Amino acid sequence: MSAQPLRVALLGCGVVGSQVARLLVEHADDLAQRVGTSLELVGALVRDASIPRDGISSTLLTTDADELLVNRKPDIVIELLGGIEPARELILTAMRNGASVVTANKALLALDGASLHDAAAEHGVDLAFEASVAGAIPLLRPLKESLAGDSVKRVLGIVNGTTNYILTRMDESGAAYDDALAEAQVLGYAEADPTADVDGLDAAAKAAILAGLAFHTRVTSNDVQAEGISRVTAADVDAARAMGHVIKLLAVAELADDGGIGVRVNPAMVPRTHPLASVREAFNAVFVEAEAAGELMFYGRGAGGAPTASAVLGDVVALARNRVLGARDPGESTYADLPISPPGTARSRHYLSINVDDRAGVLAQVARTFADHDVSIETLRQDGRGDDATLVIVTHSASSSDVASTVKTLQSLDAVREVATVMQVVGD
Amino acid sequence: MSAQPLRVALLGCGVVGSQVARLLVEHADDLAQRVGTSLELVGALVRDASIPRDGISSTLLTTDADELLVNRKPDIVIELLGGIEPARELILTAMRNGASVVTANKALLALDGASLHDAAAEHGVDLAFEASVAGAIPLLRPLKESLAGDSVKRVLGIVNGTTNYILTRMDESGAAYDDALAEAQVLGYAEADPTADVDGLDAAAKAAILAGLAFHTRVTSNDVQAEGISRVTAADVDAARAMGHVIKLLAVAELADDGGIGVRVNPAMVPRTHPLASVREAFNAVFVEAEAAGELMFYGRGAGGAPTASAVLGDVVALARNRVLGARDPGESTYADLPISPPGTARSRHYLSINVDDRAGVLAQVARTFADHDVSIETLRQDGRGDDATLVIVTHSASSSDVASTVKTLQSLDAVREVATVMQVVGD
Repeated sequence: MSAQPLRVALLGCGVVGSQVARLLVEHADDLAQRVGTSLELVGALVRDASIPRDGISSTLLTTDADELLVNRKPDIVIELLGGIEPARELILTAMRNGASVVTANKALLALDGASLHDAAAEHGVDLAFEASVAGAIPLLRPLKESLAGDSVKRVLGIVNGTTNYILTRMDESGAAYDDALAEAQVLGYAEADPTADVDGLDAAAKAAILAGLAFHTRVTSNDVQAEGISRVTAADVDAARAMGHVIKLLAVAELADDGGIGVRVNPAMVPRTHPLASVREAFNAVFVEAEAAGELMFYGRGAGGAPTASAVLGDVVALARNRVLGARDPGESTYADLPISPPGTARSRHYLSINVDDRAGVLAQVARTFADHDVSIETLRQDGRGDDATLVIVTHSASSSDVASTVKTLQSLDAVREVATVMQVVGD
Repeated sequence: MSAQPLRVALLGCGVVGSQVARLLVEHADDLAQRVGTSLELVGALVRDASIPRDGISSTLLTTDADELLVNRKPDIVIELLGGIEPARELILTAMRNGASVVTANKALLALDGASLHDAAAEHGVDLAFEASVAGAIPLLRPLKESLAGDSVKRVLGIVNGTTNYILTRMDESGAAYDDALAEAQVLGYAEADPTADVDGLDAAAKAAILAGLAFHTRVTSNDVQAEGISRVTAADVDAARAMGHVIKLLAVAELADDGGIGVRVNPAMVPRTHPLASVREAFNAVFVEAEAAGELMFYGRGAGGAPTASAVLGDVVALARNRVLGARDPGESTYADLPISPPGTARSRHYLSINVDDRAGVLAQVARTFADHDVSIETLRQDGRGDDATLVIVTHSASSSDVASTVKTLQSLDAVREVATVMQVVGD
């Protein structure tokens, strides 16, 4: 314990930042034991330094980034501002000045992680971002380190608490989408403008980060096909239940048949016996299939001040230990450099609900349409209701482009009134 | 990639060792990229070198430990022999000769991990043991590293696949204990002599390892109160189901009210809504409650050649990277040095099933007995059957010693025929 204290700076002091500051103080002795020297908070960048923050001396608050990042010489900078700028510029400034960086900024990592990794390598500092995906859940470090001797085949994640809360309510109370969203907003699980969550954009950023780590390749949010949950209906939820499934918004990253990486976000029907099915409300979980390890799942809180602060501090301790030992984290690993599979090549079972005229020959016509597009039907159920009927079809594994062209042809048939739902189904 | 190849030696070449050897060869290129240099298997210690092993050249097999550990100069030694000796002596020899050690040996770690950690520190080498608890699940490294900024309150683990398989069969098919055990033996989930598994000894070793990591204290298997599953009856399983619970064998490590650590293994009733309840068959899972992170769970395969080999190789890659970088893993962390709470102080809700004479005043007498021992009753149900009745009682949180003395007094009452079941219940 003879080493110099390590100097820690916070960029942003909101819900997560104030918890980080609290834990740094409350657990100072434990942290010092684990790091090998004490951690000293030397300042926090805020927009308005005149607003007092619980547990942080007002003398530590500053609005002057250069003063904090250059003059106060932090060893470790924790970026919790979110968004692209000024977060990126401040992280690069911190690294240029020799600081290792801990960030929870999924949007920036997914858009331009390359710049951050390159700068970390150039300046010989560490970059850690456990909190950027699935909040408190220790996930990225295990993917990077514990599975380093294995070969990941697929990652399926419930990585957005807002949408999982909404889908859980729809499943458990039969609520319509709008009502479940409104309830989530009242309870603070959804923002007033829920677009980034319900359209799958937040999950897409996390999918890109997971895919990059799992497959040792640079993946950005632009590589992710994202579909949200706003078109999921109570009828879809009922249909899933009738099949023993539950609808979840999944972030999927997988090795595709063409040797590339498929990365997507979409609602999917998950069998109730699958470990992901029991992940309720705002919890997150990430299911990993690896060649040797088999099936793994990591479960926990995906958001919130204290849970996210736990992940941030885990990174801080790791990077601080590195400073004490003169070591470095393993850097970015992109040696595999796999191509991103084109949209539509992802293969999966699909559920389709098709409203048709209930008359002779329609079933044969629909079945032939699937066959014409090389989409093999696993199960088909017809529910008649007088002059119309609903065909509920689950396909064997098929590419989403083949399914899409099947749907297009179906929609052109006279006897088909509507293709009401098309949704992926997890499982073989 | 200019560094010298790193030399790897295997001690033991059975189910896990042969998978490790296979993966070292099949994934040689990936592993070299991740480590920064190639890994070369320089030998495997076996009992009989004349038996051929798939995927390992017979020239690598040796029965001479010194020849392997000294002459062949391994950088990393993987110990997969199990048991106390000669495993301990060979690990110490490897460390004295400068090798870092990866081991899956839970019995040795739980009995005398201190010797191994001390030797690693003395000789400046690493000791890693991810595979010793919960097989493939990345668990120990996350506990040690990702949660390094947090404060663990409790660990609840399903860490023995044999007993979880038996309890799952009893729950799902209504099988009696003996039948479920026989089925597990036929399927290879249970040994011919199942004692170590069904009596909770295997789980106790893992509980000690988990407790040590979670609470930064040396904990041995002698500190663990272990009770197995052989007294769990079909009636208990039914009773749990009637309450919306399922019986699991739990390894528990928790901060006790007296400031010490409570470590125990026992069957317990787990609410079906709890994430651990859906862990079926031979799968393992560890549920962690941390102050800031909240509830986390790690799920996956707890045994088997390839899954265990995945965990072993994750450690090998980490220690090999350390060699390349001249770094070291954070060593043993025992700074907290908490006392072990005495047996009986562990607090939990308890389920009791009591057969009594069905006559006036018995219920009051039983209830008074609980009150006399400061055990508060949460729910009580009486099932009459003519002249006798069963009282099913769930207590509020109470120490197991208070519950035990309650049971002792109950057994002395004339009206009490039998206290059929006493079992802990998870939840508040």
